[in-house]
Amino acid sequence: MKRAFNFAPGPAIMPLPALETAVAEMTCYKDTGVSVMEMSHRSKMYLEIFDETVALIREIMAIPENYKVLLLQGGATEQFAAVPMNLLTGSGTADYIDSGSFASGALNEAKKYGEIRTVASSKKDNYTYVPDWDEKDFNSGADYFHITTNNTIYGTRFTHLPKTSAVPLVADMSSNILAEGYSVADFGVIYAGAQKNIGPAGVTLVIVREDLMGKARPDIPKLMDWKGMSDADSMINTPSTYSIYMAGLCLKWLKGQGGVAAMEKLSIEKSKLLYDYLDESKLFRPVAVPEYRSRMNVTFRAETADCEDAFCKAAAKVGLINLKGHRLVGGMRASIYNAMPIEGVEALVEFMKEYENNV
Amino acid sequence: MKRAFNFAPGPAIMPLPALETAVAEMTCYKDTGVSVMEMSHRSKMYLEIFDETVALIREIMAIPENYKVLLLQGGATEQFAAVPMNLLTGSGTADYIDSGSFASGALNEAKKYGEIRTVASSKKDNYTYVPDWDEKDFNSGADYFHITTNNTIYGTRFTHLPKTSAVPLVADMSSNILAEGYSVADFGVIYAGAQKNIGPAGVTLVIVREDLMGKARPDIPKLMDWKGMSDADSMINTPSTYSIYMAGLCLKWLKGQGGVAAMEKLSIEKSKLLYDYLDESKLFRPVAVPEYRSRMNVTFRAETADCEDAFCKAAAKVGLINLKGHRLVGGMRASIYNAMPIEGVEALVEFMKEYENNV
Repeated sequence: MKRAFNFAPGPAIMPLPALETAVAEMTCYKDTGVSVMEMSHRSKMYLEIFDETVALIREIMAIPENYKVLLLQGGATEQFAAVPMNLLTGSGTADYIDSGSFASGALNEAKKYGEIRTVASSKKDNYTYVPDWDEKDFNSGADYFHITTNNTIYGTRFTHLPKTSAVPLVADMSSNILAEGYSVADFGVIYAGAQKNIGPAGVTLVIVREDLMGKARPDIPKLMDWKGMSDADSMINTPSTYSIYMAGLCLKWLKGQGGVAAMEKLSIEKSKLLYDYLDESKLFRPVAVPEYRSRMNVTFRAETADCEDAFCKAAAKVGLINLKGHRLVGGMRASIYNAMPIEGVEALVEFMKEYENNV
Repeated sequence: MKRAFNFAPGPAIMPLPALETAVAEMTCYKDTGVSVMEMSHRSKMYLEIFDETVALIREIMAIPENYKVLLLQGGATEQFAAVPMNLLTGSGTADYIDSGSFASGALNEAKKYGEIRTVASSKKDNYTYVPDWDEKDFNSGADYFHITTNNTIYGTRFTHLPKTSAVPLVADMSSNILAEGYSVADFGVIYAGAQKNIGPAGVTLVIVREDLMGKARPDIPKLMDWKGMSDADSMINTPSTYSIYMAGLCLKWLKGQGGVAAMEKLSIEKSKLLYDYLDESKLFRPVAVPEYRSRMNVTFRAETADCEDAFCKAAAKVGLINLKGHRLVGGMRASIYNAMPIEGVEALVEFMKEYENNV
């Protein structure tokens, strides 16, 4: 069976060289006599893999010294609770921008722990853009300010960051981390589920500025306390060892491709290819407002749900798979994360053109 | 490089056939064109894997219909908080037996959420046995009663269960699940990190009696709420997809070996082989009180730490690896979970005899 071009939104396509290394090392990693899956997380052989993965993240994202890198479990959704449990202990208030389904999930979860304000929302327009904000509305006494840099489901992205002055900016970067050149120093906390641009599901990357640790509620579950996890080098208990190893293989590949700068350039190119076609198509139309279009998740529609279904089925037959939109919104979506080669997008556009000519 | 006999305490040895299947399917699972790691957790192809894994657990453990099976993240340690957050909302009190390091970790975490009583402890004797209890001391109004069925670090096991009447018995079974024939109906909740007897790290099995769900504190993080997770079939967000697939491969192997009954018989045989030798040895001595000896984790010591170190190094040279005891207690420990063949234990005993004759 040939490998498909996989446009799934996450878990998503991974670099083939990483998978091939995993094959070669599966039953015996180097001269250890065991699989990485079988290594005690506190063994020297495993700690080398773990430390190298953390070092790669630090290097690739140019993370300043005063930030800690944690590799946790539970995905971004666990951080929806961990963020307020760690930070909402000063004024007990935080500001959120509601730019999509995950942004709204984050702010609803946070409401369990304090007073959460929505300072801007695009919900009334079905999240087809990132809402404007007025910095005068921001609460300068908030414990933090939360955004979701890329909206996986609706296919939009923040084109610039809100200026929050002394209030720490907290960002869920799950769906565009390592694909845009952010400066970590602009954020207090960055978190991301791994399963889109970092590696397989099961790992959550959390990057925390040191001074934001040690403020947690006393009843926080200890695995969610960033300070405790940082003091234990992410190993209060067994981390998701194999997923971290796989993330390391993917990061090595990414570094070899030229790092985040190269990925950003390529993702601009890949998404432009697709949007240019969609803008001209008579059969398909793009969903997101042009200014806010995501470079990771390209959402589009056809006239009817039946048409969309027929297209997805036809595409799957030629190895262009997982193009169905999210169940909340329907339509279609091509997720083109870092591991998607431009050839995959070219093949998709070619197929769409041909399909359009023949229906 | 030859495969070693890996006596690591978890993550631990896995069945070779499971690893070999993983190799064969890594870059392309069946006719899907993608790796299991690359599958959307909500795709039909992945849900088949997930559902089959849950069905295997239900079958192998003979789980009654009125229990839900959840596959979560965060390990047993996350359940140390989840158990009280889900259950400690009636009288707000619970009873714990303190039989080791993880038992004590569980009860300390629970103290954040209510009034926790230690009804028996073997701490003063360095946890070399499971403490006796007097059922008259149990709090009949407790929200639950917590035990840790096997103590990985000290090498002891519960030989019988406390009778808690109407109070639900909650068990951390991380280190002997699937190796002893428990009746699930004796418990209100069973939980276990996967990385000893189920599969790789990154998955937590939680088995909950239905009537114990829906009682959680309102401020529980939503991923820790068993009811919400059960309603979402463990998928409020992306689960640890690949680790679950690997657990499924291991469970298929286990079923093929004859299931829990066969594993229990074998583990009695394997541990007896080792304890019989240790009882006669002049160089090594077993640590746990005989009546409470674990069949999974065999702890033993030599005269001095230097002797122990020299032995572990010599054993590693012939492919008998990870025999060092836990950093909290020192000494040595051979963890012989289900995937350890009897040949591994025979090789270890042979080597120990030879080593003893030559020092």
